Amino acid sequence: MSNYAAPIRDMQFVMKELAGLDRVAALPGYEEASPDLVDAILEEAGKFAGGVLAPLNFSGDQEGSRWQDGAVTTPAGFKDAYQQFVDNGWPALACDPEYGGQGLPRLVSMVVREMWKASNMAFSLCPMLTQGAIEALALAGSDELKQTFLPNMVSGHWTGTMNLTEPGAGSDLAAVRSRAEPQADGTYKIFGQKIFITWGEHDVAENIVHLVLARTPTAPAGVKGISLFVVPKFMVNADGGLGERNDAWCASIEHKLGIHASPTAVMVFGDHGGATGYLVGEENRGLEYMFIMMNEARIAVGLEGVAISDRAYQQALAYAKDRIQGKDMRVRGGGDVPIIRHPDVRRMLMMMKSQIEAMRALAYVVASALDHAHASPDANDRARNQAFSDLMIPVVKGWCTENANDITSLGVQVHGGMGFIEETGAAQHYRDARITAIYEGTTGIQALDLIGRKIARENGATVKAVIAEMSALDAKLAAQEGADFATIRKALAEGVAAVSACVDFILANFAKEAALVAAGSVPFLKLMGVVSGGWQMARAALAADALLKEGSGDPAFYRAKIATSRFYADHVMPQAAGLARTMLEGGESVLALEEAQF
Amino acid sequence: MSNYAAPIRDMQFVMKELAGLDRVAALPGYEEASPDLVDAILEEAGKFAGGVLAPLNFSGDQEGSRWQDGAVTTPAGFKDAYQQFVDNGWPALACDPEYGGQGLPRLVSMVVREMWKASNMAFSLCPMLTQGAIEALALAGSDELKQTFLPNMVSGHWTGTMNLTEPGAGSDLAAVRSRAEPQADGTYKIFGQKIFITWGEHDVAENIVHLVLARTPTAPAGVKGISLFVVPKFMVNADGGLGERNDAWCASIEHKLGIHASPTAVMVFGDHGGATGYLVGEENRGLEYMFIMMNEARIAVGLEGVAISDRAYQQALAYAKDRIQGKDMRVRGGGDVPIIRHPDVRRMLMMMKSQIEAMRALAYVVASALDHAHASPDANDRARNQAFSDLMIPVVKGWCTENANDITSLGVQVHGGMGFIEETGAAQHYRDARITAIYEGTTGIQALDLIGRKIARENGATVKAVIAEMSALDAKLAAQEGADFATIRKALAEGVAAVSACVDFILANFAKEAALVAAGSVPFLKLMGVVSGGWQMARAALAADALLKEGSGDPAFYRAKIATSRFYADHVMPQAAGLARTMLEGGESVLALEEAQF
Repeated sequence: MSNYAAPIRDMQFVMKELAGLDRVAALPGYEEASPDLVDAILEEAGKFAGGVLAPLNFSGDQEGSRWQDGAVTTPAGFKDAYQQFVDNGWPALACDPEYGGQGLPRLVSMVVREMWKASNMAFSLCPMLTQGAIEALALAGSDELKQTFLPNMVSGHWTGTMNLTEPGAGSDLAAVRSRAEPQADGTYKIFGQKIFITWGEHDVAENIVHLVLARTPTAPAGVKGISLFVVPKFMVNADGGLGERNDAWCASIEHKLGIHASPTAVMVFGDHGGATGYLVGEENRGLEYMFIMMNEARIAVGLEGVAISDRAYQQALAYAKDRIQGKDMRVRGGGDVPIIRHPDVRRMLMMMKSQIEAMRALAYVVASALDHAHASPDANDRARNQAFSDLMIPVVKGWCTENANDITSLGVQVHGGMGFIEETGAAQHYRDARITAIYEGTTGIQALDLIGRKIARENGATVKAVIAEMSALDAKLAAQEGADFATIRKALAEGVAAVSACVDFILANFAKEAALVAAGSVPFLKLMGVVSGGWQMARAALAADALLKEGSGDPAFYRAKIATSRFYADHVMPQAAGLARTMLEGGESVLALEEAQF
Repeated sequence: MSNYAAPIRDMQFVMKELAGLDRVAALPGYEEASPDLVDAILEEAGKFAGGVLAPLNFSGDQEGSRWQDGAVTTPAGFKDAYQQFVDNGWPALACDPEYGGQGLPRLVSMVVREMWKASNMAFSLCPMLTQGAIEALALAGSDELKQTFLPNMVSGHWTGTMNLTEPGAGSDLAAVRSRAEPQADGTYKIFGQKIFITWGEHDVAENIVHLVLARTPTAPAGVKGISLFVVPKFMVNADGGLGERNDAWCASIEHKLGIHASPTAVMVFGDHGGATGYLVGEENRGLEYMFIMMNEARIAVGLEGVAISDRAYQQALAYAKDRIQGKDMRVRGGGDVPIIRHPDVRRMLMMMKSQIEAMRALAYVVASALDHAHASPDANDRARNQAFSDLMIPVVKGWCTENANDITSLGVQVHGGMGFIEETGAAQHYRDARITAIYEGTTGIQALDLIGRKIARENGATVKAVIAEMSALDAKLAAQEGADFATIRKALAEGVAAVSACVDFILANFAKEAALVAAGSVPFLKLMGVVSGGWQMARAALAADALLKEGSGDPAFYRAKIATSRFYADHVMPQAAGLARTMLEGGESVLALEEAQF
């Protein structure tokens, strides 16, 4: 068991110094996001996360959600916590004011969502999936669908789900087989089975709005024949009240490695005559709508990597300060000390801290870019920011979640033997984190997206612009004094060179030998993450140095930012050259064996 | 759930081509270890592991061991499997013939133990701890103690435990507080609580022989005041039969992340008047005996890393060949294919396979050195082999177990969403593996042992000899043709240079700034592992090439060895330079922050 205190000072530093909160707040529609309001929101959200959600995290894991006769009971306290979450208006934070939302920028909602995810990842998945369903409906739904469903989803009274995966259709949605039969009244009857449906059934809200991928009878094969449907658990009457139960049932929930409190449902549609569904947008364009929305879901899962890592770090840090064991190597004849004094414990904590800060910075910077892509009055600015976030989202998703596996593992390791005992709680973070590199597209899928759709397809235009931006930092770093900045500068320059060499490799080879490039795609994604993180850490060090020179704020905090950036340059950035070499030289050996030789 | 097939061909390749089975079998006392006998043992052990132990692995995890009123019930099937294990004579394999053992070399028992660990890690811990207790008694026990306890332990009728850890004494055994009060009859009364006692209580054998660290009333403080005692669960009568229950009780067992079938006991000694204990060896030398024995326990835990990784690999490979999803990137217009055709899945499998082969080779080579250290007629040869194994054991322990975390994680990842579902079984390996980098000394403890006791204390003599041996391979690699060997050669040369630079750094700095060196000790341990593994992979490639040229055996198998070695050179060895840089340049940034700045 562990507490969670939202790292508000770190979050504000990133929002203000790296993600340009002031520029976001200057965008049309976001004027309300004043520094004071944002501070107040973070403080209240931090209280809710630490006071209401965090205390349910361990008990929720131990108890788990339970299935009986088609109904799911969530762990003790979850229903009440969800009600408070709704009463406090948290679901509406980033939603469209037309449907009751508060219309705050993504940058703000991202920070708040980090708190939900860190305090109770299993709980946070319910509003996360609802948010995704809201976005899909807002994007492509008819006015009638929007009016019928969005207000109650935005308020949180109803929750949403995404029904994509089937037993034979996981990473490859072309294989979706669920059917949608058009009816005379314009609705459809939906038939099929979906698996891995997060919060597909539960007891915390009165209705569940399932978004379901299915094929109409005339649909072409493959991904171009998939349509998107709304299938509510309870039908909605003309007066907006709830009507009869729809033919959408939870057949079971999974026994999982982690996120035990989050019910992962097997959903069966249409076993009793057909589930009533409403087409979203146009037929056969379902995957397109899903992909637009999936972009936001993917950055949200990347953020989960940041959040669960931070939770693990907070717990490990508290233990390391508390646990007395062994002597300080630097003190002759001293007594026993807290284990944070031991160099390797400190190294582990610094690995956790520095990577969390790098990941958070990158995630918030991308969230800020999404705000500009959405709300900038300038079309070029919108396009540039959209391209930047499109490029970086697979990196945030893949890199932050792979790191989360390592960071939560370090969290266990800091605890020694106690880390392996479930009551300690460190193991829960390790278990919970493990899904993040899998769902919403595995790291392998993110890496293919990165090299193909995001780099090769546009001939590297955006990634080259990012490389140029990273390189432009060199002059600023060169103008700084001291060993810290010299090391940061050198590491960044080497990292940028490694990325650049790989981009050239991708562009030269993708068209003719896609498999060879794909063989190195995950090492390349990690390289992009490591170096993009180093870029943000370098920016953080420069910002901290400027604030130190200004003489404002807490000097120890800013000095820690510089020292942490230096640590990242020493301990994380040196991975870059090896990762690049793996991509540049290692593709053939991936593919060398015959299957029978394995 | 998954099957386990002992990789006998790979094991034999390593034993014969890399670990010098013929030279081990030529040592005095090991003449029985003929190729035919070894083949027969491996085959029978493989059958037992695959047929009896592996089928209980998943059910044992699900059911777990249960505690009630001081007694522990192991999962269904475990008691019967243990009885078969004893009936078949497996516990006695490497034990002294004087007490009923078969006296086979460690190299052979190591291979067999890999099978127990891979097929059912939780089960395997019972004979492993027994083996440790046997070694401690054999090393330091009086003849009477040996005669009383060893025959039944060697046969497996009684099991053994190691009682080191206390709530306040984990990595730092100097803090042990358990007391031993001398009695008039020469026995001691033992009082104290021990935690994390593997197989401390169970129902699979009729007696349990606890080895317990405790302090006598006159003992000096710290590690030089710890004595070792035998505390049997049931007293042993003069006729060798079991007598009254001793005051050694299991107060509870832990709820753990993994190895659920292995009961991890809280042991309470002396709550009802004192547990009767017998001093092993001399007073105050307990830690010394433990350390000698711990060397063997540590290599055994390193081997656990190999074993659990191989289990995860076998399961992932089977799934990758079976699961149909997506198209082959290299086939235009083809149908859906098994996911092993996808480059990143293949990369993950190759990462697993190549590292497992490297780890196995290093572990067996060290086992072979232990045999020479034990049985060589030449004192110099014994000393040289002892020094080599002393140096490499923390590497085998730390590197193989840290890798096991990564490799079992890849095993989950290959399964996609199914990997997160407990019924699949991939998650169990991930959970089970996590303890290996913690118990028998965390990776941090191994790394301190490596830089301090194993390198600095002898001024690098042994590690420099190893570096020289690695370097000597360069000429042989240079004489080979083709890109594979050129790449292997280059990667090894760079790796050796990285190790060498770090060794110079350690020798130059350890005496005056131990903390600075310790700050990079875990990256250095990993570097040692990566490069030592690369050394063995280079040897494997050379051996395979020679066998190919001879024209004997299966050419596809030998070609796969070369291709896998090449993969390791492309994908694993490039980590070396970054790890070295981290040690050489990154120590200060580990120690830069004040505690309040975390």
